[in-house]
Amino acid sequence: MTQTTPTPASGVAAPRNLHLEDIAVGDRFVSGEHALDAEQIKAFAAQYDPQPFHLDETAAESSLFGGLAASGWHTAALTMKLFVASVPVADGLVGAGVEVSWPKPTRADDILHTQSTVTEIKPSRSRPGRAMVTFETLTLNQDGETRQRLVSRVVMFARGQR
Amino acid sequence: MTQTTPTPASGVAAPRNLHLEDIAVGDRFVSGEHALDAEQIKAFAAQYDPQPFHLDETAAESSLFGGLAASGWHTAALTMKLFVASVPVADGLVGAGVEVSWPKPTRADDILHTQSTVTEIKPSRSRPGRAMVTFETLTLNQDGETRQRLVSRVVMFARGQR
Repeated sequence: MTQTTPTPASGVAAPRNLHLEDIAVGDRFVSGEHALDAEQIKAFAAQYDPQPFHLDETAAESSLFGGLAASGWHTAALTMKLFVASVPVADGLVGAGVEVSWPKPTRADDILHTQSTVTEIKPSRSRPGRAMVTFETLTLNQDGETRQRLVSRVVMFARGQR
Repeated sequence: MTQTTPTPASGVAAPRNLHLEDIAVGDRFVSGEHALDAEQIKAFAAQYDPQPFHLDETAAESSLFGGLAASGWHTAALTMKLFVASVPVADGLVGAGVEVSWPKPTRADDILHTQSTVTEIKPSRSRPGRAMVTFETLTLNQDGETRQRLVSRVVMFARGQR
């Protein structure tokens, strides 16, 4: 069991090539940081979620968000970037299904990082050396405010099983 | 109640500015199409999900996917683009939470469209004229194969309630 808790400040890398036997419920992986800005928010929105409150500060003022907000899918994509870099699963992070919620909108001045915790390891009954591993990944800003909560189920293998 | 079922082929636009009273459980909205290719898959992956099976055909061959596959988050972002264009909710599509699953990987030659069905309308008890509306959005390719299933809960308002 390897407990890997590099902090964004420490810059310590997690061990590469994590296999099933390297993780345990409760293990936590902390990513580096991504600094957002209004340009990134608008560029993503223009391509994938062209709604006024993601594209224009003035239009956003009178919206539900009360100001420019990142698309939830932008927050999700940035979360994946941070998740992949901080949880180096040997055969890659391949998700079967996820749940995502956005308790508060992501803002242009947010500096994001992720904290991913192993919450369940469910061994395959039919295939030894394989398990579905559940991660809870919180995306937090520089003030520790949660911008996204992601629960993902990922296939992991023991060494030599794939 | 407005039943809006424009097909990708017909090019009929859904009514703009949908309010709560314009929709009913069972209503279905069909989007236009998005043609994917390997360059788009790699460009998204390089920015948000830089894993070998999303970046390189050769590396992808020996992966779980058995060939180049789009990031699930890329499929999700493209789904949002098609969803937003086909379900013109008056105050915008603002999701509180979603569930996403990817039964099969999205491939470079996929031409995607979405079919979004209203599955539940839950009126707010405390605030009249407001409801949480659940959409099930299937992302399908040109052969009718499901690449993603998205369930999202969206806030909607009656006319004049916002």
